[in-house]
Amino acid sequence: MTAEPDLRHHGDAEVRTPGLVDLAVNVRTGTPPEWLRDRLAATLGDLAAYPDPSAARAAVAARHRRPVDEVLLTSGAAEAFVLLARVLRPRRATVVHPQFTEPEAALRDAGHTVHRAVLDAADGFRLTPGAVPDEADLVVIGNPTNPTSVLHPAEAVAALARTGRTLVVDEAFMDAVPGEPASLAGTRDLPGQVVVLRSLTKTWGLAGLRIGYVLGPAALIAELAAAQPLWPVSTPALAAAEACSTPAALAEAEDAARLTAAHREHLLKGLTDVPGARVHGEPAASFVLLRLPGAAEVRLRLREAGYAVRRGDTFPGLGPDWLRIAVRDERTTDRFLTALAAAVSPA
Amino acid sequence: MTAEPDLRHHGDAEVRTPGLVDLAVNVRTGTPPEWLRDRLAATLGDLAAYPDPSAARAAVAARHRRPVDEVLLTSGAAEAFVLLARVLRPRRATVVHPQFTEPEAALRDAGHTVHRAVLDAADGFRLTPGAVPDEADLVVIGNPTNPTSVLHPAEAVAALARTGRTLVVDEAFMDAVPGEPASLAGTRDLPGQVVVLRSLTKTWGLAGLRIGYVLGPAALIAELAAAQPLWPVSTPALAAAEACSTPAALAEAEDAARLTAAHREHLLKGLTDVPGARVHGEPAASFVLLRLPGAAEVRLRLREAGYAVRRGDTFPGLGPDWLRIAVRDERTTDRFLTALAAAVSPA
Repeated sequence: MTAEPDLRHHGDAEVRTPGLVDLAVNVRTGTPPEWLRDRLAATLGDLAAYPDPSAARAAVAARHRRPVDEVLLTSGAAEAFVLLARVLRPRRATVVHPQFTEPEAALRDAGHTVHRAVLDAADGFRLTPGAVPDEADLVVIGNPTNPTSVLHPAEAVAALARTGRTLVVDEAFMDAVPGEPASLAGTRDLPGQVVVLRSLTKTWGLAGLRIGYVLGPAALIAELAAAQPLWPVSTPALAAAEACSTPAALAEAEDAARLTAAHREHLLKGLTDVPGARVHGEPAASFVLLRLPGAAEVRLRLREAGYAVRRGDTFPGLGPDWLRIAVRDERTTDRFLTALAAAVSPA
Repeated sequence: MTAEPDLRHHGDAEVRTPGLVDLAVNVRTGTPPEWLRDRLAATLGDLAAYPDPSAARAAVAARHRRPVDEVLLTSGAAEAFVLLARVLRPRRATVVHPQFTEPEAALRDAGHTVHRAVLDAADGFRLTPGAVPDEADLVVIGNPTNPTSVLHPAEAVAALARTGRTLVVDEAFMDAVPGEPASLAGTRDLPGQVVVLRSLTKTWGLAGLRIGYVLGPAALIAELAAAQPLWPVSTPALAAAEACSTPAALAEAEDAARLTAAHREHLLKGLTDVPGARVHGEPAASFVLLRLPGAAEVRLRLREAGYAVRRGDTFPGLGPDWLRIAVRDERTTDRFLTALAAAVSPA
């Protein structure tokens, strides 16, 4: 890869052509569920009042067993990256790649120099000791990581925490992992500042609503809050945060995560039959990263066949031979696999 | 006034006590209308997709007869103030007071020194020649102004525009003025950079949804957009911006503005009977600013009687003897006036 990747490319740009089957955006299909839509609809009569985040904040805090002042509700995880980039003053910022490009873009926009720790496909994108330099005082990592789908063990991520360092863990896809064994969302006793970002977007189908949250030390949360505009999160988004933090909602998310895992195994099995295709590392999220020689052309042929997949060349550490594929139900996956086989070996 | 006013106090804090009749927040009652709620509800099935602002942006551009690249949709006007404070690099920023405190707070948060041009109650808060110093390269003014309710003529505001200066006109309440004769929203030929902020919050009852927009030169709009997080405005908020820009919606807003004007006259007439009360300047918006000796105590007595009004002492240039009162229907106003008379002259 010679050219610098376009950090501002996102999967939603790949599905703007109507009629494509979307395997480019990692939002669960059939969402938001009807009960959640009803909850959101119930807020539409209250929109004349300014948003009051207190109930949603308390619900999120209770869900992660943290004090309320360690929770910040944001206008999607995207706002959280911008706030962190503006508030933190790193001397040496390191982003672990390949990963979602927005944290690096936000840091650069805020004037910071960003160093990249690029994990190796040959290692299964494993977080090896020494991957992150000791002098990094800001480390950003995704877990499970978009686009590799790799889940780092909790101990491996926790081992990055140290006094004098801010460790930012993007757990936007963690609720796609049954039981969330690797989450640091409830961990409060690590050295330095540990910040966990969470999203409701993917599991609950709320990409259009703009809601996410940050968990971290109270002092940093207060600084981030001061950098937000007034009333940063809308009333319907607050209602969603509250509704998705209940035990019943968490149980539903857990069921969805188990179903996603089964669907992912089906996709992975099918991919073993695709000539030249290879998955590096062990996928754990609601998407799979595929290495496929000629992927750039395959992607275009898939578009012609009606399927949108996510290009890999805009992720640092990947290149034109990579594709990210969303996990869908088995019927959709089977059809996609047929289209993929045809795109790989055109007649 | 000796102490520095609390710029971060807002009217919604005054109505958090349940059961109070709200004359503290300037949002039209009975809103959002049912047709608009239906439009918003129709978006709730589409929330799994990331927001696409193109249709809303085009609708707002058409409504103000400006090119699309001169329109930026924001998460409420509050986000616009933060973006302007971050993008602009004024050598001398001047905020015309008394006015909404958030622009000054956002400028200070971004590290700028803010000078105040304080208009005089004895002048009816008129924008006098020389009120703003020539050397100001950033001028922020509200029109009509919150909390004074004074509408500056278009020529008076336009006269502030000059080469080398950014003039920011907060027109958040302009749609409460029938015909909008003083708006600069559609004016593109003034010297320097003229930026107009608009809100849908007050007329349409969308304070909880977070939607507003900025009109200005394309180059500045592009800079502001680059400072926004990804997907800054939610899908329901975009639907509202589109729906409230149609000719039918504008006609409805115009009717609402005329009704507000009639209700305001009713309130003003009643206030002439309140001993010691005086309105400075000619109110033109959906609220009235009242000078009343002992207003701080009157406000507390009104709370006990079940009415929330907005304190005046948090606005630079005002003080403890001022109250801001939202215009409501005549029945609510009559009851309020009775309570006010009792609060002014307690038994």
